[in-house]
Order: sequence, then structure tokens, then C-alpha cells
Amino acid sequence: MNEQRSGAPGRVKEVTSLANPLVKDLKSLALKKFRDQQNAFMAEGLKLVIDALDLGWRVRTMVFAKSALGNPAVEKVAARVLAKGGDILEVSEKILTAITRRDNPQTVVGVFEQKLTKLADIRPAAGDVWVALDRVRDPGNLGTVLRTVDAVGAKGVIMVGETTDPFALETVRATMGSIFAVPVARATTEAFLAWRKSFPGLVAGTHLKGAVDYRTVDYAAKPVLLLMGNEQQGLPDALADACDRLVRIPQAGRADSLNLAVATGVMLFEIRRAALKLDS
Amino acid sequence: MNEQRSGAPGRVKEVTSLANPLVKDLKSLALKKFRDQQNAFMAEGLKLVIDALDLGWRVRTMVFAKSALGNPAVEKVAARVLAKGGDILEVSEKILTAITRRDNPQTVVGVFEQKLTKLADIRPAAGDVWVALDRVRDPGNLGTVLRTVDAVGAKGVIMVGETTDPFALETVRATMGSIFAVPVARATTEAFLAWRKSFPGLVAGTHLKGAVDYRTVDYAAKPVLLLMGNEQQGLPDALADACDRLVRIPQAGRADSLNLAVATGVMLFEIRRAALKLDS
Repeated sequence: MNEQRSGAPGRVKEVTSLANPLVKDLKSLALKKFRDQQNAFMAEGLKLVIDALDLGWRVRTMVFAKSALGNPAVEKVAARVLAKGGDILEVSEKILTAITRRDNPQTVVGVFEQKLTKLADIRPAAGDVWVALDRVRDPGNLGTVLRTVDAVGAKGVIMVGETTDPFALETVRATMGSIFAVPVARATTEAFLAWRKSFPGLVAGTHLKGAVDYRTVDYAAKPVLLLMGNEQQGLPDALADACDRLVRIPQAGRADSLNLAVATGVMLFEIRRAALKLDS
Repeated sequence: MNEQRSGAPGRVKEVTSLANPLVKDLKSLALKKFRDQQNAFMAEGLKLVIDALDLGWRVRTMVFAKSALGNPAVEKVAARVLAKGGDILEVSEKILTAITRRDNPQTVVGVFEQKLTKLADIRPAAGDVWVALDRVRDPGNLGTVLRTVDAVGAKGVIMVGETTDPFALETVRATMGSIFAVPVARATTEAFLAWRKSFPGLVAGTHLKGAVDYRTVDYAAKPVLLLMGNEQQGLPDALADACDRLVRIPQAGRADSLNLAVATGVMLFEIRRAALKLDS
């Protein structure tokens, strides 16, 4: 599984034993250490695998349940995967359950190569919106932010500092496929701050001390970088100081009481308010 | 634990064995069946227990780690709990880990009586906003919606049909304490539709077929009931037909690509747009 053949078509294998080394490799993808060792991650569902292929991602291994044999949609995708040098693994539902660690697993699972965008390759143009997340901790929050970024037509996400893994199964699940559509970059705080200096637009952060209502800022025209603090602490000073504007979302109850993904969603819909139209 | 003494102060017990029946009762609260049998649920953290007491909730049992002995804040809360007839359980960290099913558990856990609001007792006034969730499935989504409802100053949540349990540990965690502040009602679809007939305001639902941009509706003045479909299917016809307006949140990418809690958050901030001010 570690070896990526190019040119030659992939192979089809049938695996029935949980003790098979291929199954062990797949199961180990539940842990970051082994995802990184194999430079791989897993995504569940036929639709996701099709989306990924359409977006140019390479499927290293496509795993599917024997019960899907004869399903024309599954076989068509399997043929695409094979033609591009990916392997096909035909397994029992028991094995799929073990691999995905969930009951009633999807009948198709894809293993993909991890792919991150380099900070240096991000060149924001007018109207572009990027989101930077400081030390995001919760896989569900990260996945949901990626999904929302996709939904509003923002350009991508920069993960700053020590963050949860974008390629964890729970994160990938929460993205509902947006992991394949949304560029993700990773940077230390220092690298991010250096890169930010050349950001050709507005850098807005949400902050409890923000004196500015988030709805009063003009986000149009220029590219916007939205900087969000993490679930526990909000933005540290070094990042807050790097913002052109510190904004706040007014709340009726206790301060700082929004979930990170919800706060990011509310901000993104405000930033993209003029750009999003029903017929767009 | 099932018996609620009133009047008499509670008792303090020390428990060191995982096999102790009190610990077994607490552990069983991880399952809905036993939560319902005991009419109880668990919330973690000293701050939450204080919030709950302040909001008039009865703490049936307060569990705390021996390591918190001598902590004045913990002992003060313990005294309040005892005075109101609640029991105190002093346990090892190992037991707290077992009860909460998480490593590094909080040092304080409260056991509360479940409390739901009756549909018939909801009497919306001008400016009030209620949220109805159709068959919500994901505990994290339900908890996050409760938290957002609290944050925007909406009045409460009606769960329609078969839904995930608001008193599950994961849901309570996601509410970050809003489970104590936000009234929750539960109703069958039929009961909800009957109740809806006398709702004295605007009933707005989000729907893929909604022809109306969610930002073009006047939500002020009248009470508003926001009706949200579930994670898989959106609103079924019977509920869609019960709406005065079907609205849609414009999106740039694939249709229907927002997480339920994010979509509800975006809707709520729009509905409460005029009411929420930075200095409120």
C-alpha cells in the first residue's frame, strides 16, 4: 500500500481475513502516526470517491464490500481507479466495519494520498476569502469549517500552530467531501506571521476585545483573511496584533458562547454577504 | 440515587471501588435507557454545576475527585448541593474517568433530573424566536444548536419526531452549559403540527426548494418559529407545508452543503440581526 505505481494499472485483490496485512495497514490509518507514515488517509462513501476522482485526487486503494459486486456505479469507479494505477480491495462487511470503526459502514472506502497546499503558493486575488484557524482542536469543528468554506466559495484554510489532523477519519467525515475541494495549508505561528506580512488585503480576527461589530466592516473588493482563535482561548496576542481589524459577533447571553464552527460560519456568511446570491 | 429527598440535607459518601453500586448507576447514565429509568443526566465541570444551581436546577448527586478536597470553590458548591438535599460523592480520578468515559476528566460532575418543557406551556410573545428541529440525529449538532440558541437570545428548542437524546453526555458537553438555560420541548410530528396552528407569528423553514433568500424576510416584531430539517433529508412535505415561508441560504458550491448546526446559526443570526447589538 505504501508504494504508488504510476503508469501500470492497479491490481484487484480479495481479502477475507482480518489478520491480512493489507487490512492491518488500513486499520492503522485510524492513528495519525500511521497516516503520516503511509502519507495516506481514508474517506468513506462512493459519492466521495467519485468527487475525489473528478477533482483530480489519486485513489491509492479502493476498498469495497463484496455486497457491492455487480453494482454498475461501483464497478465503473473501480475501473477508473484501476486505470490510474490504484488497487482494488474486495472485502467482507466485517472488514469494512473494522477499517472504518463504525457499524453499518459505507460499502466503498477510498485511501488517498495526503495533500497539503504550501503557504508560499497561496496568492490571493480580489474577492478571495481565506480562513486561518489557530490551533484548532476538535476534528468535527475543523471538518465543519472546511465544509462551510466550500459552501460559501471561500478559497481555503490555513491551520496555524499545533492543530488537530485534517486527515483524521472524523474530520474527513465532517467535511462531507470538502476535504477534496478545499486547499488546506499548515504553518507554524512564526511562518504564518511572516506570510501574513505580504497578504494583499484585509486581515480580520474575531476577538472578545474586538470593539467593532462584525457587520460594520467592508469586506468586499480586497481579499480577506479571517483569523479565528481556538475552542479554548481565542486569539493569542501575537495573532491578534497581526489583524487589521478585530471584530466581535454580538451575543445576547454569556460572552464567547459560540461554537467555533458556528462562529466561523456566521463570519463567512457576513464576509461573503454581497457575493452570495440565490441564483449564483 | 433514584430517590430525591426534599427538605433534609443530603449525605456525603466516599467511594473508592469501581464495583460500588453508586458508581455503576452513574456509569449506566451513558445509556439512554438508564438515563430515562433514573430520569437523570450528567454534566461535567464545576462551572456548569454552579450555572445549573444558579438557574434553579436541582443537583441530585455531585461527584468530585478527592484531589479537589480543600478547594474552596468546590466545597462552597458542595455545601449548596447538600443544603438542597443533594448527595455528595467523593471519588478517585479513576472512577471519574469511568463515569465520564474520558481521560483527564473534570474534577466535578453533577447528576441532574431531566426536565423538558411542555409544548402547551410555550406562549411566544413578540420578538421571541423558537427553533424546531425535525428528527435531529447528531448529538453534537443538537448540543451546538442549543448553545447557539442561548447565544442569540432565542427562547428554546422544540425537537420534533424521533430525535437524538438531549441528555446524552455528548450533547450536554456540546451545549457548554446551555442545556440548563434553554428550554427544550419534545413532540411528535402530529402534536407539533397541531400546536403550530396556534403559533401567533411567522413560521419559517429552510428548504432546498425555498425560492426566497433568507435575508429578504422580515423577522422583526412577530414571534418567529424557525423550522430546520435534519442532517439527511431536509424538511418532509408535512412540515414544509406548515411553514409560512420556505427560505434558502445561498451557497456557492454544491447544494445543501451546510452542517445543520452551522445552517441554524446562520439563520438565527439573520433572524436576530436587528436585535443583536454589541452593547446589548
